[in-house]
Amino acid sequence: VIERAHAEALDAADGLASFRDRFVVADEGLVYADGNSLGRLPRATVAALERLTAEWGERLVRGWSDWIEEPVRVGDRLAPVIGAGRGEVVVCDSTTVNLYKLAAAALAWRGGGALLADRGEFPTDRYVLEGLAAAHGVELRWLESDPVRGPDTASVAAACRAGDVALVVLSHVHFRSGALADLPAITAAAAEHETLVLWDLSHSAGAVPVDLVAGGAALAVGCTYKYLNGGPGAPAYLYVRRDLQEELRSPVQGWFGQRDQFLMGPEYEPAAGIERFLAGTPSVLGLAAVAAGVELLLEAGVEALRRKSVALTELTVALHDERLAPLGFRLSSPRDGERRGGHVALAHDVAWPICRVLVEQERVVPDFRPPDVVRLGFAPLYSRFVDVWDAVDRLAGLVERGDHLDMDASPARVT
Amino acid sequence: VIERAHAEALDAADGLASFRDRFVVADEGLVYADGNSLGRLPRATVAALERLTAEWGERLVRGWSDWIEEPVRVGDRLAPVIGAGRGEVVVCDSTTVNLYKLAAAALAWRGGGALLADRGEFPTDRYVLEGLAAAHGVELRWLESDPVRGPDTASVAAACRAGDVALVVLSHVHFRSGALADLPAITAAAAEHETLVLWDLSHSAGAVPVDLVAGGAALAVGCTYKYLNGGPGAPAYLYVRRDLQEELRSPVQGWFGQRDQFLMGPEYEPAAGIERFLAGTPSVLGLAAVAAGVELLLEAGVEALRRKSVALTELTVALHDERLAPLGFRLSSPRDGERRGGHVALAHDVAWPICRVLVEQERVVPDFRPPDVVRLGFAPLYSRFVDVWDAVDRLAGLVERGDHLDMDASPARVT
Repeated sequence: VIERAHAEALDAADGLASFRDRFVVADEGLVYADGNSLGRLPRATVAALERLTAEWGERLVRGWSDWIEEPVRVGDRLAPVIGAGRGEVVVCDSTTVNLYKLAAAALAWRGGGALLADRGEFPTDRYVLEGLAAAHGVELRWLESDPVRGPDTASVAAACRAGDVALVVLSHVHFRSGALADLPAITAAAAEHETLVLWDLSHSAGAVPVDLVAGGAALAVGCTYKYLNGGPGAPAYLYVRRDLQEELRSPVQGWFGQRDQFLMGPEYEPAAGIERFLAGTPSVLGLAAVAAGVELLLEAGVEALRRKSVALTELTVALHDERLAPLGFRLSSPRDGERRGGHVALAHDVAWPICRVLVEQERVVPDFRPPDVVRLGFAPLYSRFVDVWDAVDRLAGLVERGDHLDMDASPARVT
Repeated sequence: VIERAHAEALDAADGLASFRDRFVVADEGLVYADGNSLGRLPRATVAALERLTAEWGERLVRGWSDWIEEPVRVGDRLAPVIGAGRGEVVVCDSTTVNLYKLAAAALAWRGGGALLADRGEFPTDRYVLEGLAAAHGVELRWLESDPVRGPDTASVAAACRAGDVALVVLSHVHFRSGALADLPAITAAAAEHETLVLWDLSHSAGAVPVDLVAGGAALAVGCTYKYLNGGPGAPAYLYVRRDLQEELRSPVQGWFGQRDQFLMGPEYEPAAGIERFLAGTPSVLGLAAVAAGVELLLEAGVEALRRKSVALTELTVALHDERLAPLGFRLSSPRDGERRGGHVALAHDVAWPICRVLVEQERVVPDFRPPDVVRLGFAPLYSRFVDVWDAVDRLAGLVERGDHLDMDASPARVT
C-alpha cells in the first residue's frame, strides 16, 4: 500500500521543490493536474508583463527598435529546450498557423507528394493537413497506430517505402496517451525515403528532453502554454533546420518575413534566416510572457525536469494499479516510463461524469479527452508528489462512493 | 499667422479633451505624432491585463470556459466601430494571416481569377497577394493609382471590366498618403463585375467611420494596435459578410474553427458562423487589451472622433502651408479633408535625416515612410491641437537651422 507519507518523502527529497514558489499558487487546496494543457502563472511573468506594458506606455512606437528582435531572441533562448541551434527557432503565431506554414512550405518544395499522419493525431494537426491535401490535390494517408503505444518506427518506414510521401507530421508526445515517439529513429527511417518529418513538440517540450539537431529533425512546431508556462494563447514557435531555411518559403508572405522590411520594397524577398517564417506583426506582450516561462525551464534544467516527471508518472501508474484499476480504470499510457511523456491517460467507461465530479466537488483539475480518458498531467516544475497522491485518492474516493452516477453523462463542451 | 494660442483655443473647446487622461502619458514633453502606427497605452488596459493575468493564475485551465468566447465577443464589441453586424467580426491572428486566410478563401470560392491591388499598397498586403498568386497560378494585376489621391472608383471599375478579376484588395485609408477610398462606390463598381473587394481597415478604423454593411462590403481585415490602442502586436480582426460566411472556407483549418471543437472529430467541419475563420488558440492576453481599447473608442464615439480628426489634420495642413512649404516640404496627402484619413504625409527630399533629428533632438515622434515622407498621425482620442502646433513648430525650426544636414542620410532600419 502506497501511503501519503511516501509521497511526502519524495517531495522532501525533490531537488526542484523550491521552484513551486516561483509560481502563483492562488488556491493551495486545489490539485492542479492539467499543467500539460495550461501551465501555471510564473511570478516572473507578472513582473515581465508589467514591465512590458510600462515600456509600451513610455517608449511608444520607439519600443519597436528592440521588440522587433524578440521573435528570434526568444527563439534562441528556447532553442536549448528543444535541442535546436541559434537561429533555428522563432516564436510567432499559433501552433496551427506555424504547422500550416511549414507543411505547405515543405509540400511546395517537394513539388507535391502524399502527406502522412497518425489517425489519432491531435485534431488541429489533422485538420491543417486535411485542408492542405485538398487545396494542393495531394493524398493524405493515415497511420493506424496503436492508441496506447503510438506511432512506431517500423510502420512509418513501411508507409514511406512507397517513395511518394513528401511529409510526415507526428507528435513527439501523444496528446492523449502520452506515448513518446522515437524522434531520431523515425526521422532517420523517413529520411531514407527522402521524406521530411515535421514534429509537433507541444506535449513534450519542457517535460521531455528534445534533441532536434542530434535527431536530424528537419521541421518542428510547438506551443508555449503547456510546460513552457507562456499563458493562454501565448505565441507558438517553429524550428527549421539551418540547411533547409534557404530552401523553404512560407506560403504566408508577410512583411515581418521580408528582407529589409522597412525599405518596403516592391517585391517579396524572404529574409535570409529563420525570420523568413515570420508573417505579421508579432505579439510583444505574448513574447514577454514566453521569455519569462522559458527562463524558468532553463534554470531548472530539462534533464532534471525529466527525471522528476518520470518519477511523478511512475507514482501515478503505481497508484492507478493499486487504487483505480479495481474501480474499472485502465491505463491508457505506455507502462514503460522511458516511452511515456509527462502525463498519464486513465480510461474509464464513464470518464466524462467522473471528470466533472473530480473538478467540481473534489477540487482536482484533470482533463477529459473524448471518448473515455481522464488525463492527469503533473508538470514537474511546480507539481508535488503529494499532488499525485491526493488526485488519485480523491478520484478513487468519488468513484467508490458513486458520486459520478448522478452526473449528466452527455459530453458537453470541455477544454 | 497661426499662433499657438489658436491651438490652445481649439483644445479648450474640444469635447473629447478629457479622454487624454484615460491614457498613460509618461512624458508630457514628448509630442506623439505616431498614434497611427502604435496607439498609446490606455489606463484601463493596465488594469485589464492585471485582471487577466490574475485570472490565469487563479482559474488556470478552467478560465477557458470564458476565454473561448473572447474572439467573437470582442469582435461583436468592435463591430460598430467598422459598421459590421453581430457575428460578422472575429478578433484573431495578425492582419497578415487574416488577409491571407480571406484572400485564399475568396480565390478558392471563385475557382481562380486574377487578383488586383494598388502598386502602392501597404507592403504586407502586396506580399501576401504575390505569394497567393504564385501558389495558385493566378495573375496579380496592379492599379497604378495617383500616390496622393489613391485608388479611384473609375480605375477599379475599368480594371474589373475584363470580367476575370476575382478579388481586389485595397486599404480604406492609404498608409502613406492618408487618402481615404470611397468604400461604397468602389465596392459597388467591383460587384457589377462579380468581383469581391477585401478592405484593409488598419489605417481607418477608429479614426474614420467605416460602414461595411451599408457599403455592401464582402470582406475586411484590420489591425488593432493603431487607433484601437490594443498594444504592440495585439491580435487583428477579420470581417466576413454574413451571407458569405457559409460559402467561404479558411485555408488554415484549425481546431478553433472546427464545429464542436472539443469533440475532436475525425474530419474538419467548419463552425457555422464567423468562428470558422479562427485557426489556432487565440491570444487571451491580447484579446483583453483589444477589448479595453475598443471600449474607449465606443465611449468617445467614432463620429466625434472623426470630427476632431479632420480638425487636427486641417490644422496640420494649414501649418504646413504656412511654415513648412517654404522649407521644401510638399503636402503628399489629399487637401480635401473629406478625402483624407487621420494622418498627413509631408514629403521632403531629405525626409529621413529630418525624421531622425525630429525624434532624437526635438522630441517629436513621427514616422518615416520611404522614400521621402514624414508622416504625422495625431490620434484624435488623446492628441491635442497644441501637439500639432508644437510638432510643426519644432519641425520647421530644425529645418530652418539646418540641424538635419549633419545627420547620416542613409535610410537605416526604422519602424
